[in-house]
Amino acid sequence: MQIDIQAAESLSQLLGARFSQSQADRELHGASETFHRAPPPDAVVWPVSTEEVSAIMRICHEHRIPVIGWGTGTSLEGHALATQGGIVMDLMKMDRVLEVRAGDLQASVQPGVTREALNTELRATGLFFPVDPGANASLGGMAATRASGTAAVRYGTMRDNVLALEVVLADGTVIRTGTRAAKSSAGYDLTALFVGSEGTLGIITELTLRLHGQPEEVASAVCAFATLEEAVECVTATIQSGIPMARIEFVDGDAAQAFNQFSGGHLRDQPHLMVEFHGSPASVQDDARKFGELAADFGGQGFDWATTPEDRAALWKMRHGAYRACLALRPGATAVVTDVCVPMSYLAEAVAAAAADIKAEGLIGPMVGHVGDGNFHSQLLVMPGDEAELAAAKRVATRMAERAIAVGGTITGEHGVGIGKRPLMRAQHGEAIGAMAAIKAALDPLNIMNPGKLIPDAN
Amino acid sequence: MQIDIQAAESLSQLLGARFSQSQADRELHGASETFHRAPPPDAVVWPVSTEEVSAIMRICHEHRIPVIGWGTGTSLEGHALATQGGIVMDLMKMDRVLEVRAGDLQASVQPGVTREALNTELRATGLFFPVDPGANASLGGMAATRASGTAAVRYGTMRDNVLALEVVLADGTVIRTGTRAAKSSAGYDLTALFVGSEGTLGIITELTLRLHGQPEEVASAVCAFATLEEAVECVTATIQSGIPMARIEFVDGDAAQAFNQFSGGHLRDQPHLMVEFHGSPASVQDDARKFGELAADFGGQGFDWATTPEDRAALWKMRHGAYRACLALRPGATAVVTDVCVPMSYLAEAVAAAAADIKAEGLIGPMVGHVGDGNFHSQLLVMPGDEAELAAAKRVATRMAERAIAVGGTITGEHGVGIGKRPLMRAQHGEAIGAMAAIKAALDPLNIMNPGKLIPDAN
Repeated sequence: MQIDIQAAESLSQLLGARFSQSQADRELHGASETFHRAPPPDAVVWPVSTEEVSAIMRICHEHRIPVIGWGTGTSLEGHALATQGGIVMDLMKMDRVLEVRAGDLQASVQPGVTREALNTELRATGLFFPVDPGANASLGGMAATRASGTAAVRYGTMRDNVLALEVVLADGTVIRTGTRAAKSSAGYDLTALFVGSEGTLGIITELTLRLHGQPEEVASAVCAFATLEEAVECVTATIQSGIPMARIEFVDGDAAQAFNQFSGGHLRDQPHLMVEFHGSPASVQDDARKFGELAADFGGQGFDWATTPEDRAALWKMRHGAYRACLALRPGATAVVTDVCVPMSYLAEAVAAAAADIKAEGLIGPMVGHVGDGNFHSQLLVMPGDEAELAAAKRVATRMAERAIAVGGTITGEHGVGIGKRPLMRAQHGEAIGAMAAIKAALDPLNIMNPGKLIPDAN
Repeated sequence: MQIDIQAAESLSQLLGARFSQSQADRELHGASETFHRAPPPDAVVWPVSTEEVSAIMRICHEHRIPVIGWGTGTSLEGHALATQGGIVMDLMKMDRVLEVRAGDLQASVQPGVTREALNTELRATGLFFPVDPGANASLGGMAATRASGTAAVRYGTMRDNVLALEVVLADGTVIRTGTRAAKSSAGYDLTALFVGSEGTLGIITELTLRLHGQPEEVASAVCAFATLEEAVECVTATIQSGIPMARIEFVDGDAAQAFNQFSGGHLRDQPHLMVEFHGSPASVQDDARKFGELAADFGGQGFDWATTPEDRAALWKMRHGAYRACLALRPGATAVVTDVCVPMSYLAEAVAAAAADIKAEGLIGPMVGHVGDGNFHSQLLVMPGDEAELAAAKRVATRMAERAIAVGGTITGEHGVGIGKRPLMRAQHGEAIGAMAAIKAALDPLNIMNPGKLIPDAN
């Protein structure tokens, strides 16, 4: 579609230079981290306030222009691609931490604040925001995709850590969901509905987040296992034993090698677990001892403790760099990233089946995972233009998703649906897709909020 | 309304004696624990399977008959009253624990299983279900009202502990929401939408619940404070300090006396805190010591430790009997029960203001609270027929709710909206009520699911 002249004039009048139809701005906001591709949007807007977001939505509603929210552009499923044209709304100029209420363990932020920026702001308070997807994503984007990451096994996902939202609906109406109380039974949980809605129901313009006390003591370690099965079975046993892990991450041999090459690590060419413990000095020692005993039962070797903050930072920087490190295993490649999450008792089986399938298809697909939640990724490396390889990668990804569904798991633990997982939604949700579509139609009857995403078989 | 003959015949054919229009059955299912009153429903049905619930909904949908879900009848806000006539669907014959998956820390249950029945079933597994509203409520009802209770400060509410649902929609469609994975980003969070929807969007026919390991060590205690302010300020300091309380309950002097009279307690005529610690022996000892130091700072006295399981059971039975104990303070009285929840930093102020207001209106209103969440109740005792007293109690309740809203809190922390809190919904949610109404209309266009509840200003 094209933006008609009247709409362009209204937006230009409202936003001045913060409305752009330039090729460069459009292309910057039409890119994707992965193999997903679409033409760039017709225009880009950079609102600086809720009032501007509302005014933009009123104009786009009147002219039936699709609006796609944009944060740091780190989505892995093509969420923010303008597949039906329209306007990309870049929310990164709304980047203020509005209020930190330390006594209530809460902060209110605009959507363009990144998780690292928030944690920098919080440093002096003794509090932190724990949801950590690796990328320094915007908190609005993290809420929109229901992100989680390495620390979710202890602190939960965005579902658990967003208390309240301000949202601008398709017609420009501004609503507030949730409260600042720790819990509420006052009506439908709209906060939970908007968290994970991927911009298809409204634009998040403010978030009230739950903060946590910085742990008195932190200890991190990495250890190697002879086989993938033993590493993963160690995770299952750890979670079932109730040890309160702050992080427990799986890294396969290929990923370990990628870390070594990209980040100067010294990991063996073997599967590893990277773990972290938070608590009082006594409880951390106790938890670490219990985990060490379990790891020994599964043949864990070469425990390497990161005892200083610098060593810990290096360890997790290495883990957070996984996506780029694995891409670098094959220069020029792009990635099909899988994201299944299964019940703990099926984890070992699911990881083993994925590894076998990747091998059988002759693909390079290093695996990492937030395995304490039953969530793991394979990063299937494909060369742009090699359609046969892309097809093979997609087959592997689809079979992983189908196996996850078969054991009661999910096609996406944390990356979201976007366009990438959309074809699998019906297999996971069955008749419930009808309820999702009804909600979408009720809140966005003109289908202008990130159309063509999340809900399958719809425009 | 009356149920037309054709519908009655269809239901009778489907259900036999499990469809009743008898006066006795109708009156049993038209009662309420509190001052809320409505005429009994036109009929009662007792389905035994999801298929029957679906068939009942298809009949009621065709004939536009309101359907109101019913569990143990312990709702405090008139949720299950047939204010517009129709059929009460008693789900207590669907009372099977379908599966316990200990390795995944999950159980699947039918909606008529009570929390005590589930915990009895779990006893041998080393696991338990922590959500504990006091009453031995049905798990379907607890999900429908987003219940919580004494242990939510540690283990969360029904929002946090329901992973997946099976729900029958207004037209009889059966959907499944959520998964058995620990987390998912696959589309709208329908589980969270149905949890707390109070039967206005569908009937819950199966729940997948998150279980927790029974703590290795448990310690409980009660201690007294000179003033209400000191007791509540001790709570705020405790939560802010990050001590992982398993329970921390406030009891005012009136409630303490009620406990003594009703349950043979020996509490002083003073405000008290009742606390519990869960963990390893070392961590429980550490947590209890830290709490003891804080309590001493606020003048806490007469620490009484319940060291045996029997003593602990007696302590919490006393707390769980609060509703009946407080009613017994004034024989013949019924209750207007308040349920505000505020951010921690406003807790002391909110409790003090409520106490002053109750006194100023000359009412008897013992107070208890799940204060670790910022949630507290006053049970305003009114004599049936005394309209002036009822009006005074409602004024106090409304002002408590308004003060909670003013500080970013909620009109109901755990009891839900029903008809009791409905007039306050717009004050709390503003424009967001429109989004709730749109969702309701999308999923129940004929408005037959528990009509007249939760959403204000609608039929």
